[in-house]
Amino acid sequence: MISSRTQVTEMIVSAKVRKGLKWADIAKQVGQSKEWTTAACLGQMTLDKKQAEIVGGIFELSDEAIAWLQIVPSKGSLSTAIPTDPLIYRWYEIVSVYGSTIKELIHEEFGDGIMSAIDFSMDIQRQADPKGDRVQVLLSGKFLPYKTY
Amino acid sequence: MISSRTQVTEMIVSAKVRKGLKWADIAKQVGQSKEWTTAACLGQMTLDKKQAEIVGGIFELSDEAIAWLQIVPSKGSLSTAIPTDPLIYRWYEIVSVYGSTIKELIHEEFGDGIMSAIDFSMDIQRQADPKGDRVQVLLSGKFLPYKTY
Amino acid sequence: MISSRTQVTEMIVSAKVRKGLKWADIAKQVGQSKEWTTAACLGQMTLDKKQAEIVGGIFELSDEAIAWLQIVPSKGSLSTAIPTDPLIYRWYEIVSVYGSTIKELIHEEFGDGIMSAIDFSMDIQRQADPKGDRVQVLLSGKFLPYKTY
Amino acid sequence: MISSRTQVTEMIVSAKVRKGLKWADIAKQVGQSKEWTTAACLGQMTLDKKQAEIVGGIFELSDEAIAWLQIVPSKGSLSTAIPTDPLIYRWYEIVSVYGSTIKELIHEEFGDGIMSAIDFSMDIQRQADPKGDRVQVLLSGKFLPYKTY
Amino acid sequence: MISSRTQVTEMIVSAKVRKGLKWADIAKQVGQSKEWTTAACLGQMTLDKKQAEIVGGIFELSDEAIAWLQIVPSKGSLSTAIPTDPLIYRWYEIVSVYGSTIKELIHEEFGDGIMSAIDFSMDIQRQADPKGDRVQVLLSGKFLPYKTY
Amino acid sequence: MISSRTQVTEMIVSAKVRKGLKWADIAKQVGQSKEWTTAACLGQMTLDKKQAEIVGGIFELSDEAIAWLQIVPSKGSLSTAIPTDPLIYRWYEIVSVYGSTIKELIHEEFGDGIMSAIDFSMDIQRQADPKGDRVQVLLSGKFLPYKTY
Amino acid sequence: MISSRTQVTEMIVSAKVRKGLKWADIAKQVGQSKEWTTAACLGQMTLDKKQAEIVGGIFELSDEAIAWLQIVPSKGSLSTAIPTDPLIYRWYEIVSVYGSTIKELIHEEFGDGIMSAIDFSMDIQRQADPKGDRVQVLLSGKFLPYKTY
Amino acid sequence: MISSRTQVTEMIVSAKVRKGLKWADIAKQVGQSKEWTTAACLGQMTLDKKQAEIVGGIFELSDEAIAWLQIVPSKGSLSTAIPTDPLIYRWYEIVSVYGSTIKELIHEEFGDGIMSAIDFSMDIQRQADPKGDRVQVLLSGKFLPYKTY
Amino acid sequence: MISSRTQVTEMIVSAKVRKGLKWADIAKQVGQSKEWTTAACLGQMTLDKKQAEIVGGIFELSDEAIAWLQIVPSKGSLSTAIPTDPLIYRWYEIVSVYGSTIKELIHEEFGDGIMSAIDFSMDIQRQADPKGDRVQVLLSGKFLPYKTY
Amino acid sequence: MISSRTQVTEMIVSAKVRKGLKWADIAKQVGQSKEWTTAACLGQMTLDKKQAEIVGGIFELSDEAIAWLQIVPSKGSLSTAIPTDPLIYRWYEIVSVYGSTIKELIHEEFGDGIMSAIDFSMDIQRQADPKGDRVQVLLSGKFLPYKTY
Repeated sequence: MISSRTQVTEMIVSAKVRKGLKWADIAKQVGQSKEWTTAACLGQMTLDKKQAEIVGGIFELSDEAIAWLQIVPSKGSLSTAIPTDPLIYRWYEIVSVYGSTIKELIHEEFGDGIMSAIDFSMDIQRQADPKGDRVQVLLSGKFLPYKTY
Repeated sequence: MISSRTQVTEMIVSAKVRKGLKWADIAKQVGQSKEWTTAACLGQMTLDKKQAEIVGGIFELSDEAIAWLQIVPSKGSLSTAIPTDPLIYRWYEIVSVYGSTIKELIHEEFGDGIMSAIDFSMDIQRQADPKGDRVQVLLSGKFLPYKTY
Repeated sequence: MISSRTQVTEMIVSAKVRKGLKWADIAKQVGQSKEWTTAACLGQMTLDKKQAEIVGGIFELSDEAIAWLQIVPSKGSLSTAIPTDPLIYRWYEIVSVYGSTIKELIHEEFGDGIMSAIDFSMDIQRQADPKGDRVQVLLSGKFLPYKTY
Repeated sequence: MISSRTQVTEMIVSAKVRKGLKWADIAKQVGQSKEWTTAACLGQMTLDKKQAEIVGGIFELSDEAIAWLQIVPSKGSLSTAIPTDPLIYRWYEIVSVYGSTIKELIHEEFGDGIMSAIDFSMDIQRQADPKGDRVQVLLSGKFLPYKTY
Repeated sequence: MISSRTQVTEMIVSAKVRKGLKWADIAKQVGQSKEWTTAACLGQMTLDKKQAEIVGGIFELSDEAIAWLQIVPSKGSLSTAIPTDPLIYRWYEIVSVYGSTIKELIHEEFGDGIMSAIDFSMDIQRQADPKGDRVQVLLSGKFLPYKTY
Repeated sequence: MISSRTQVTEMIVSAKVRKGLKWADIAKQVGQSKEWTTAACLGQMTLDKKQAEIVGGIFELSDEAIAWLQIVPSKGSLSTAIPTDPLIYRWYEIVSVYGSTIKELIHEEFGDGIMSAIDFSMDIQRQADPKGDRVQVLLSGKFLPYKTY
Repeated sequence: MISSRTQVTEMIVSAKVRKGLKWADIAKQVGQSKEWTTAACLGQMTLDKKQAEIVGGIFELSDEAIAWLQIVPSKGSLSTAIPTDPLIYRWYEIVSVYGSTIKELIHEEFGDGIMSAIDFSMDIQRQADPKGDRVQVLLSGKFLPYKTY
Repeated sequence: MISSRTQVTEMIVSAKVRKGLKWADIAKQVGQSKEWTTAACLGQMTLDKKQAEIVGGIFELSDEAIAWLQIVPSKGSLSTAIPTDPLIYRWYEIVSVYGSTIKELIHEEFGDGIMSAIDFSMDIQRQADPKGDRVQVLLSGKFLPYKTY
Repeated sequence: MISSRTQVTEMIVSAKVRKGLKWADIAKQVGQSKEWTTAACLGQMTLDKKQAEIVGGIFELSDEAIAWLQIVPSKGSLSTAIPTDPLIYRWYEIVSVYGSTIKELIHEEFGDGIMSAIDFSMDIQRQADPKGDRVQVLLSGKFLPYKTY
Repeated sequence: MISSRTQVTEMIVSAKVRKGLKWADIAKQVGQSKEWTTAACLGQMTLDKKQAEIVGGIFELSDEAIAWLQIVPSKGSLSTAIPTDPLIYRWYEIVSVYGSTIKELIHEEFGDGIMSAIDFSMDIQRQADPKGDRVQVLLSGKFLPYKTY
């Protein structure tokens, strides 16, 4: 009996190690970006029927598990409010150190409102650099203004 | 008596409202990007003597306050571990929803290590879009590998 | 020296008690709903120049305070993560008890996405009832779908 | 051996995915609103014997599970004090940003007291809108006054 | 400038020590129980005009402070989620140790619902006992049933 | 293998639902108040041999489980510091709103000390009322004075 | 205006440093043990009139401050739930490491109940030891049994 | 497969109830104080080979479990930062109420440093008293001075 | 099915006790320092194929477990934000007491930036001392400067 | 009136910026290491009379402030349990990632016990390195064994 998406995520994560797969290759089969596909396989996004069947095929999931991939999951991938993994913590630190800066500059350009985390996309690339390659991440979120009423 | 950088940040924030200034203009006078300059004025970065004097002139700061701008500050701009302001929270949410995805994809490309939040830069731009303009943020951080020893 | 919107909110709250004003009357002068106007006066919304001057006149605020009303505030009106005031706690309890229900029903109707808290309005009314009058609150938020990319 | 309602909720959630059911259809069979029925199936409300048997039939529950549906559950559906799921978080954010406003306006209209979360009902509807459909939620709670004694 | 009820509570608490008053005597002048009157003076209840003027007279409060006594306060008298004062902690411990028992027995007698903390009264008395006097507290709260809808 | 009282409590709770028993009836068989008996069955009190055997007979417990009923348990029945269940939360709210009042009035009557939560009893009754029946709870705790030494 | 005992404690602490006094000497003048006297001066115990006047004389306190010493204080001397000061933390660690042991051994000797922290005394002494002197602390608390009812 | 000392502690606790043993008797067989022996059996201390074999014999442990008794455990026996069990909480309360007093008196006698919780022993005794027997606990910890360098 | 590195760590820890191995010996076989090797076996570092096979051989791990050793783990070995184990807590205390000192001295020597915890190594040695042997730990982390941009 | 060491630390920190001093120079005048001296000036260590007078002279402190330098302070320099400043956080991360490793290796070498944070010293040096200079920190703490009793 599967009673949460978390169980399906564990099946996927386990199969990925056993089979030695790569997210980039899985994404190509799914036909979406590697960022969206990875988030979806890790239990953060909802797949449509076709996507779910492709993912189910790749990871040899049961029909029940494939059905769960099409259910909107309860999102959030951190196990503590402040992440402990160093790579993820650096992102929390960026929010901590630059949070007020991001807020000021978006308001200066757009006025009161937010950058959407829903109508949102992300692109992660290697940026070659003689002093050491860099991780370059492009975030794009629709600006949503507060309105008076 | 000034005993923390926070007091200087409050002076700057207060003067900025009174004078109706813009971060983009301040950055031009300082000669750095608007992202770094704003973070610096908000108490997250250390200014050199010349930068501190320019900022001091813009905000009419005392010599003591200008000296504090050149002292490495205690960083972190959030008043709670999970931010309450909706704009800043969305960034926390991105870390929460996409944290495991970012981790997987950086490791797939680079192996074990992190994206630096120190050897790091950020660029925030308006991206025109007929369905509603977007906030586009480019983050660039050096990849730092874990090594065996 | 005013260094945060909180100080302006305290001035407004203090003047309101001294003068014995009502939010409904203030809202009429501002020309917006009582919900938006109250949130704005309590430091959660940004006023335009004309609105700020009206509010400044009502509460006898200084020019500096009126300038602050036009600056995007750092939002969030709770002093603890779980509110202690019984009236506000009941709303937290609604989120706690009905949170999973709200999630299920919005997803059943709209698919994966959220109800916006930004493109959002609220209307609070008395609902006469022979068994005891009721508080009726109508919340309206734009549905924002997650998209694949 | 079933020792908590949570186990029954997991059985229901699991069966719902396997069978591809909809809350609106289940509610019709139970003969209550979709809001109350969903909350009840998710472990937040107590069913009477007839309702429990209908729900038990729909989800093929054992007699022991059907008995548990008629026991008052320990309520609260969030796994962390501050919800991590973006859809549920937006409701927490509404309480955070508008909490003081809701308090002020209910007190202005009714005096000291609260809006009940027990003598309470909720109605969630799609509101068609050319700029994007909206989620409209109507909350109705009895006003309960504090009394002197 | 008074900007919160807390400031008025501090004035009352300070004057009470200076003047050596007793809550029981204050309650007699106010014409309410000692329990309600103490809670009101400590910032947890709203006074009507006459009550506020009596309390203002007793503690020599300014007109502004007297006005604040008539404003619905933000309630909650604990400075930490788990109280540190031993006397108050014992009450928290009663909720911790007997919480599930109270829940079971109220539900056994009344069905699903709660004991109101709003339509509520409390009476604290000394109970003479040869083995050592006892504190006897009688709590009375209206039962509020959950309803289907 | 039973390694904590919690496991025995789960057996009791499970059997109670399966058998459709009432705490009041169980208490009569045990020969103690319904309050103490319920707390004991829910893992908060220690039973003597005879009580444990009666309880074991009612719920069809193994000898090992009956032995555990006679072991002093680790007490505390809340799963979070601030309870989420609405009925239990109302008691937490009483401590929050009335905590300082209870403290003041006990000290005014008895001097410095506490109301014991150990030498303590509780009685829960239905109080008929034409405006809606009430839950009446009588708490009695020995006063324990602080002494100088 | 003094509105809390904390202010008086700060006056005492400040005067003690200025005057270079010792707790042992103060205790002799007060006529109580150094443990009780120190706790009382640090805001944790209630002094009687005579004790308060002696303490007031030693620290040159105002009449208002002396009145506050006779008011039952809100107790608890830690500023965080887990103490940060190394000396006090070691005591927290003793509770953490030996907590279950203390519980087992008191129950083995006395049955179910607690060691009182109210009918309690403490004695701190230097214990000479050739391998390094030791701090010896004798705690004595009345055993309070849980009773059936 | 045993992968943590906690599992061994559960085996010991379970066997102790089944066999109806006493810590004082176990300690005699082990040849150490009842305080150290209990702490060791509850997973807080490391046993040597001979002690582990004696304890293994008493509780009928497997060789693997006996091996684990000789591994330094991860210490700390509280399941929450602030203990919920009333007996253990009283010790936390002593640290809270008397923490600053203990600090002051140890420093007055010894200067800056701490009372060791490692080079430490504890002795728990019944103290007969006509007004009710008392729990007497003697703590002895080496004083460790901070040094300049 | 293995779905997280934690499961592999438990297998290693369990086998180490059963087999009575030493980290120093394991490190020699792996060909790395004892510090890196221990951290790797405890789930904090990523092993290459050869290292994983050696470790797998030592602890008799399955091929699936050996595959997991080569996957970048989710790092962080504390089960609570503030560690409870006395040995690990002392390190937390060093950060607490000396944190501001370390910050000041690194900034005084290097300017604004951090000591890397990624390009980092650690060496733990016994330091013989007639007054009691000492633990000597040498930490070496690359200085990473903040840069303007 | 000075009522806590924190106030003295603020005076020192403020004077240090105004005067443009260096910790290394201050340490030379005090005659202790730069690590101990900085910790002492930042409120974590107790100075003797001569050291306090030297520090008082350097920072132009009042006699009252100089007296406070000789009082054992309440230690702990972090304002949150998990530090937010990136430099200090890296040290917390070292404890998090390497905590279990440090524990294992110290126990392997020394048996059960701890590395003292009291009988402790620290030395911070620049380590020249062609790939970028490193921060080298040598920590030395006496090993303190747990003993049986």
